[in-house]
Amino acid sequence: MMDTPVYTVAILTVSDRAAQGRREDLSGPALRESLTTLAGATVVDEAIVPDDVSAIEGALRHWVAQGVDLVLTTGGTGFAPRDVTPEATRRVVDREAPGLSEAMRAASLAHTPHAVLSRAVSGIADGTLIINLPGSPRAARENLEAILPALPHGLAKLKGDPSECGSPP
Amino acid sequence: MMDTPVYTVAILTVSDRAAQGRREDLSGPALRESLTTLAGATVVDEAIVPDDVSAIEGALRHWVAQGVDLVLTTGGTGFAPRDVTPEATRRVVDREAPGLSEAMRAASLAHTPHAVLSRAVSGIADGTLIINLPGSPRAARENLEAILPALPHGLAKLKGDPSECGSPP
Amino acid sequence: MMDTPVYTVAILTVSDRAAQGRREDLSGPALRESLTTLAGATVVDEAIVPDDVSAIEGALRHWVAQGVDLVLTTGGTGFAPRDVTPEATRRVVDREAPGLSEAMRAASLAHTPHAVLSRAVSGIADGTLIINLPGSPRAARENLEAILPALPHGLAKLKGDPSECGSPP
Repeated sequence: MMDTPVYTVAILTVSDRAAQGRREDLSGPALRESLTTLAGATVVDEAIVPDDVSAIEGALRHWVAQGVDLVLTTGGTGFAPRDVTPEATRRVVDREAPGLSEAMRAASLAHTPHAVLSRAVSGIADGTLIINLPGSPRAARENLEAILPALPHGLAKLKGDPSECGSPP
Repeated sequence: MMDTPVYTVAILTVSDRAAQGRREDLSGPALRESLTTLAGATVVDEAIVPDDVSAIEGALRHWVAQGVDLVLTTGGTGFAPRDVTPEATRRVVDREAPGLSEAMRAASLAHTPHAVLSRAVSGIADGTLIINLPGSPRAARENLEAILPALPHGLAKLKGDPSECGSPP
Repeated sequence: MMDTPVYTVAILTVSDRAAQGRREDLSGPALRESLTTLAGATVVDEAIVPDDVSAIEGALRHWVAQGVDLVLTTGGTGFAPRDVTPEATRRVVDREAPGLSEAMRAASLAHTPHAVLSRAVSGIADGTLIINLPGSPRAARENLEAILPALPHGLAKLKGDPSECGSPP
């Protein structure tokens, strides 16, 4: 029996209303459920912050410093005046991974024409992969599930797995 | 009967030859016609500038300062040495909206393999959404029409509509 | 009989192991073979550098200064800690061409879900088009071939061909 690697995951809900306790956070729990299909994923922390660049940036930097493998954010990726999750994320990542966000938007277009409005970004900060997801629980899950099949390989490479990408299994 | 919101729109044609009067501007009028299907869209201004970063930037900043809701540019998004519309646009926007340009290119690929050469960008500057479109009248219309169904929702959110994206209608 | 324009091409293999002679470079030769279908393409130089930002940047700047029309890189576009080819490329280009990388990833998704992990970028530096490709020989060829039909037009425009993009042939 092979060992399944353990990936530590943190989930950040970005929402003024959820941060004020005026709305129940449904997206965080929805993502937690989707992650059960990512073998070895262990959610080690969750937080809720308002739609504020500094608050988002601070939460992301905290988890990067802790060496969390994967950070998922939900919310703040749209056109509303206070939607700034992508801008906060760009401040933290040092290597962008645009393919993840492109593929999520393309998959999401099969569900809704509004998919094109997502401004989500993805990228790497040190050894942490950060992925922005939309704010609605259903859209957040649909987006994550579109790229989930690629995450074990991506996270393994990020941790320094030296196997060749093009080599046969 | 419901009120249809009014969206103010400005159209910028970017072309050395059109700015010099050596070519008739066909793309601006073509876009104006496409916009008739966007309920409530009112074209409030149009201009023609040469392929010059400062001229483009100046026109965009003027309309952002005036609070125009939507600015469409046509031309200057390709590989020619003087094509700099995306660079001028990036100087003005403070929040990029890559999903719009991605979706337009993907839709355009159904018409021509040259779609991959579009360097168009989209983004938000204060309360103004700026979208780069190609220079040919037909491509400009095809690109715009690919994202038109999402624009009412995007423009409403940009103006501060507090409805939840994920809530049922 | 029409003259076929000559496009000068340089190929950069980015790989620590290939640079150390510990692995044979198979991707460079694979790309050379794909280019035989690009009429007029002449490979004028090839090099192998390690996964080091300065080494990659130096090779790219050398070819830009020489006026090479097209530079293809292979390798260093993934999630491994030393994968920095996109970051080195962004330092060199002055006009990004995101449509090329988007289309390559979308086409690559038909072959493998790992396509979303490619962080490849494309862009223009002066008169040189630089395109990042993945490191595996097969993926590098598949990616290049997805955009090859658009390259003659793109390279002609880059060299200043004044024909209208939207005009009939």
